[in-house]
Amino acid sequence: MTATLPTQLTGQMIIAGTPVTGTGHEVRAFDPAAGQPLEPVYRHGDTTDVDAAAAAAAEAFPAYRATTAEQRARFLESIAAHIESVAESLIARAVAESGLPTARITGEVGRTTGQLRLFAEVLREGSWNGARIDTAQPDRTPLPRPDIRQRFVPLGPVAVFSASNFPLAFSVAGGDTASALAAGCPVVVKGHDAHPGTSEIVARAVTSAVTESGLPAGVFSLLFGSGPGLGVALVTDPHIKAVGFTGSRSGGTALMAAAAARPEPIPVYAEMSSINPVFLLEGALATRGAELGKAFIGSLTMGSGQFCTNPGLIIAVDGPGLDAFVTAAGEAISAAPATPMLTPNIAGNYASGVEMLSGAAELVAHGQVGAIETCGQAALFSTDAQSFLGNEELQAEVFGSASLIVRCADTAQMHTVAAGVEGQLTATVHADTSDEAAAGELLPLLELKAGRILFNGWPTGVEVCHAMVHGGPFPATSDSRTTSVGARAIERFLRPVAYQNVPKSLLPSPVADDNPDRLWRRIDGRLTQD
Amino acid sequence: MTATLPTQLTGQMIIAGTPVTGTGHEVRAFDPAAGQPLEPVYRHGDTTDVDAAAAAAAEAFPAYRATTAEQRARFLESIAAHIESVAESLIARAVAESGLPTARITGEVGRTTGQLRLFAEVLREGSWNGARIDTAQPDRTPLPRPDIRQRFVPLGPVAVFSASNFPLAFSVAGGDTASALAAGCPVVVKGHDAHPGTSEIVARAVTSAVTESGLPAGVFSLLFGSGPGLGVALVTDPHIKAVGFTGSRSGGTALMAAAAARPEPIPVYAEMSSINPVFLLEGALATRGAELGKAFIGSLTMGSGQFCTNPGLIIAVDGPGLDAFVTAAGEAISAAPATPMLTPNIAGNYASGVEMLSGAAELVAHGQVGAIETCGQAALFSTDAQSFLGNEELQAEVFGSASLIVRCADTAQMHTVAAGVEGQLTATVHADTSDEAAAGELLPLLELKAGRILFNGWPTGVEVCHAMVHGGPFPATSDSRTTSVGARAIERFLRPVAYQNVPKSLLPSPVADDNPDRLWRRIDGRLTQD
Repeated sequence: MTATLPTQLTGQMIIAGTPVTGTGHEVRAFDPAAGQPLEPVYRHGDTTDVDAAAAAAAEAFPAYRATTAEQRARFLESIAAHIESVAESLIARAVAESGLPTARITGEVGRTTGQLRLFAEVLREGSWNGARIDTAQPDRTPLPRPDIRQRFVPLGPVAVFSASNFPLAFSVAGGDTASALAAGCPVVVKGHDAHPGTSEIVARAVTSAVTESGLPAGVFSLLFGSGPGLGVALVTDPHIKAVGFTGSRSGGTALMAAAAARPEPIPVYAEMSSINPVFLLEGALATRGAELGKAFIGSLTMGSGQFCTNPGLIIAVDGPGLDAFVTAAGEAISAAPATPMLTPNIAGNYASGVEMLSGAAELVAHGQVGAIETCGQAALFSTDAQSFLGNEELQAEVFGSASLIVRCADTAQMHTVAAGVEGQLTATVHADTSDEAAAGELLPLLELKAGRILFNGWPTGVEVCHAMVHGGPFPATSDSRTTSVGARAIERFLRPVAYQNVPKSLLPSPVADDNPDRLWRRIDGRLTQD
Repeated sequence: MTATLPTQLTGQMIIAGTPVTGTGHEVRAFDPAAGQPLEPVYRHGDTTDVDAAAAAAAEAFPAYRATTAEQRARFLESIAAHIESVAESLIARAVAESGLPTARITGEVGRTTGQLRLFAEVLREGSWNGARIDTAQPDRTPLPRPDIRQRFVPLGPVAVFSASNFPLAFSVAGGDTASALAAGCPVVVKGHDAHPGTSEIVARAVTSAVTESGLPAGVFSLLFGSGPGLGVALVTDPHIKAVGFTGSRSGGTALMAAAAARPEPIPVYAEMSSINPVFLLEGALATRGAELGKAFIGSLTMGSGQFCTNPGLIIAVDGPGLDAFVTAAGEAISAAPATPMLTPNIAGNYASGVEMLSGAAELVAHGQVGAIETCGQAALFSTDAQSFLGNEELQAEVFGSASLIVRCADTAQMHTVAAGVEGQLTATVHADTSDEAAAGELLPLLELKAGRILFNGWPTGVEVCHAMVHGGPFPATSDSRTTSVGARAIERFLRPVAYQNVPKSLLPSPVADDNPDRLWRRIDGRLTQD
């Protein structure tokens, strides 16, 4: 790495390496903790900018996909290094733009660079190639069997929509970008208006890595714009072949509809909405109901409750154990300080959501009132199972530190509630050894509802690793067959191609006879590194 | 196996093991070779039948998905055995209903049972479980790493739409059904009106296997009905979680739209439309232009051209080699007898398609005129590259023995045509050793366009094996990330679930510590059978 990145912000987008000043709507970041806007002014791009970024991505695609896995691994590592080289100013800006604590943002820098390095490791290991060879059987009757080989190839340029709540790990160089770049797909990011400065700093780090790696500039662009305007234009651009999105249900479903209505429909990976049910079983409640209640509020209020995996729903059978849980949770939440939310808009939506819950369920307790308007006041409600099942509103995600306890009459009713919830990112079970039979009956129901099932913990905190699933049935995501966190995220941007009787000199290296990269391959159905 | 299947046809649907007479439109199969209708009368079902079949599938799902892979493997083998036990009457009926030769239908029985047995093998091998384990790191700082495990679970009940052109291999117990059942998903088939008797015989074989295997009856149902009516009702039924379809572009895109508009959108795997471009390179044309022309017509007219992989487009640079090819192809097609098409409707559509080509391109030669109306008369056209690129109609699939030769001025123009074609199931290259550099330049373009690339052969004939891809970018299919033929087809009906800190006694066997089935698993990122 040679370049040191300039840290003065310009307010510009970056289209294929070139800074471009938008001509649209003016946007300024807002410091929710200080309650004031931040310099500089950013301006939204328009369809000309979408055209330029998408066309540059399409032009870069043939050369980019022709890079070796090792070249792309080094490119991802270079992005990580460039991000680290500007970590200090990046953290300061992200803290100012998000209102999140420095420790949390510092951790998120590590998560972001960790994700980039995980995909570098995945690229080098090579199983992502999906290499398979079925050998020819020239003497087979009645017809000879041809030589057939299979590997994965990248889909093409990918549009990535940044999340508000992870200004680094699910933003400009976040999980979607890292996995798409790993797959060999150029990326056009629509940055989030809540953290344009953070976006610019990271985009410049990526751009430096593109240059340093000798890649075509169109491999990466950053645009700013509205979802319904520039966002839809990006999703419907014919050069774009897949979409990664983290955000609201309304935003995600709008992009899904736009992608499905294209002359050539494309896959959309939208991570949208989840209330992350937590089931408290009898034994666990009896032995540690109060302890669980306190820990629950810790998970609920972390990061002002602005996690996709926030525990927004507690389900348990009525009784003294649940009473102890509710009492402890109520005490804990009453003491919980109000903390700033990401944007005034998010704080407003949260307040509306809490108002909706207030009208439909019983208040257990509120948290402390905030010193400034952008703070979210935590809130805990309760209702009975029948009311919950009869009111769709109570399943709507309220983004922030609000949660709802559903009291069930018995285990059967708890199962009915489990079967009645929509698709989720996570489902949590608190169970003691004495609960194992009950947990065993619940588990198959939860497998149908959630991408991740966890025991005796809290869903906030998503480990970036090989086995993670951050996904789940609709409306948690638009495509339950995939994950947006962890090694398998690369698979979203690949498709298989079969090669039949292709001359050996022309075979791509993953399916070449001599297996130059010592990949794990399936030969005549058997896995081997030979 | 104990039961012998009755071979007298009843004209009924089968809903969860029970024969049901429809109340809708009357349908009779038609023998296109004899030019006359066949007994008995079948009647379309209605939404009540859809509700019943989908509800039974949903009810059967928990028990069916709880079966072991070995149990499902034996079930698939039982279906194959039951089909074989009625092979004689099945072949006779399928020949009568399709007009296809006995040898072809006999081969298709073998292909169908072979597919079922391939998925039994895939189930036993076990990699479809996608098992991954990331071990806990309790001492990691700042936070311990939990134990995270991942495996695939089935999506839920699947709707399968039978193809007209493969009355066995892509119909009631065809590839979509076999792969969905293998995944652990109950199946509701919409049989094709062109071969209701064949459908009934196979459905009874499947039903016998369901009973013999001790499975809930709702694991399988067969309905008859129209696509826009019963078909859309099936795709929009809330119990249905995925769709397999083989048929026309209009039919497939209608189901895609219906599935996308559901409150809970679901994946649709539609295999729709492909003209399967064949590139003839200079060296190959020079050494064997005439030979290639003759072989091309053999592939084109096989099965009256009613293959998804029929070579409907020939692309080559003008010159004496191409002239020799065209002359030989013209001679061969002139001698080609007209053979019956699957249905009068398909024959009518084919005639319209040929008329469209006649208006837009130059006729090279026609095949023989048919003795009866349902015969398709083969037809070969030619045009220049500029006309081809300027007229979208010339890219429309004409289902039958019609093909178009596109004459290019030079290699650059051939590349322009390659880049201009829509997504395809296959792309074929005929190349001599002298063509390798040219073929190497073409290959990356074809990888973006087709699911399978083959050299020095013809695309008709799709091997059922581990490495096959029968798929490709839109409009060849609705989802280029998958294949409908070969081992990977099972992946379409699965989704990953992660288990975090789940007690060992509750872990599903694919991710249990002791690995009872000796599966290949990824542990901390490394493949191992330990």
